[in-house]
Amino acid sequence: MSRSRAEATPGFVLLPELGAPGERLTLDPDSSHYVARVCRARAGETLSATDGRGALARLELIEVAPRAVARVVAIEQHARTREAIVWCGACEASRADWLVEKLAELGVSAFVPVDGARAEWRVNPARLERWRRLGEAALRQSRRTHLLRIEPPRRLTDLLAERPGGAAGFVADPEGGAPGEPPPAGVAIGVIGPAEGFEPEELDRIRDRGFRTISLADGRLRTETAALAWAAWWARDRA
Amino acid sequence: MSRSRAEATPGFVLLPELGAPGERLTLDPDSSHYVARVCRARAGETLSATDGRGALARLELIEVAPRAVARVVAIEQHARTREAIVWCGACEASRADWLVEKLAELGVSAFVPVDGARAEWRVNPARLERWRRLGEAALRQSRRTHLLRIEPPRRLTDLLAERPGGAAGFVADPEGGAPGEPPPAGVAIGVIGPAEGFEPEELDRIRDRGFRTISLADGRLRTETAALAWAAWWARDRA
Repeated sequence: MSRSRAEATPGFVLLPELGAPGERLTLDPDSSHYVARVCRARAGETLSATDGRGALARLELIEVAPRAVARVVAIEQHARTREAIVWCGACEASRADWLVEKLAELGVSAFVPVDGARAEWRVNPARLERWRRLGEAALRQSRRTHLLRIEPPRRLTDLLAERPGGAAGFVADPEGGAPGEPPPAGVAIGVIGPAEGFEPEELDRIRDRGFRTISLADGRLRTETAALAWAAWWARDRA
Repeated sequence: MSRSRAEATPGFVLLPELGAPGERLTLDPDSSHYVARVCRARAGETLSATDGRGALARLELIEVAPRAVARVVAIEQHARTREAIVWCGACEASRADWLVEKLAELGVSAFVPVDGARAEWRVNPARLERWRRLGEAALRQSRRTHLLRIEPPRRLTDLLAERPGGAAGFVADPEGGAPGEPPPAGVAIGVIGPAEGFEPEELDRIRDRGFRTISLADGRLRTETAALAWAAWWARDRA
């Protein structure tokens, strides 16, 4: 299942500070390893880099070892016209690991674990850090210019109180209507209940805040599956 | 995160042979454990069961321990008007574990691991058995009446030669077109390349057999993510 060096895709790395064209950058040890070992890149070759905040740079490799050093050739800024935010009820943290990875691959902007009446997340700082690393790996994999933002758990009531006015809101519900077409622009928020479901009063409050109930499949989905199905629905827009 | 017994959803079990109304069935040890411990059901209570081939039975529990015994009250047959089959290129077997679970939750009919020019599956009988168990657990979770069929790996060329004529075919490709609406009826086949991608000649051959290239997101997706995104697209139809 290996590919020859000639077939390898040019490297794509995450560098929080890209500097300006002409600058020399020294890559961190992880990115250096990736460039040297995974991409098998050599001095003189081209590399892409993003800051995870929309900037995409073309780099020229100057040195590969012991640390990769590259010169910034050009930088362009990518603006987002669509954003998806997932408010996700508690599921097992290990199940959330792959969910975070998949949301990042699909281009979701933010993952917000939500604590409610029936279920609370058990997330320690190590788990949040793990999710951030998974999001970074998925950014490289999918060659995206925006990193998935991982937030610490929030209370549903607090999130609803702060809900941004202009966002389109959706809540996954087996009794909901057909999702139709995803919003072609702007911010979309998808709310997914925990394994135990929302309390009826919670669901009422969510709907009162303008979230539309939508059904994502004809069966009952696990929390992480529903979150993924919502993100895949949103990501499908090719407008 | 526990719920009181009163709130528990009525049990849903998989029984390969449902018999006829009036018959007494003795549940296997796993299902007996599930009924007694997970559903905390008691004699006299109602239980649902499926044979995984479309039959849905209402059962009345007669005994709970040591093995659950139930009487068949009624049986109805559920026909499928839509079916999805996933032909999936090689990915790590552990990544395929959750893919199988999610495909079963979303109601996919069959998962077919595909060996091609660039990548082959490494699947032993134990892994296939594990996938079958994950599919059964997902059937219970999503309360479906049709079990996900797990097939052993097949060669792409053989599958293409046998492709059913009436099925609508799709192949995930970042360069493909917008997927549009999923087929409202009949069989749909989704073809997903391995991590290494298809050879150009393989992709030509797939297209020559009438498969339409579709793009599922604006970034590059891992094999299992693309398979999931395709299944979520297909499952979304509420027609």
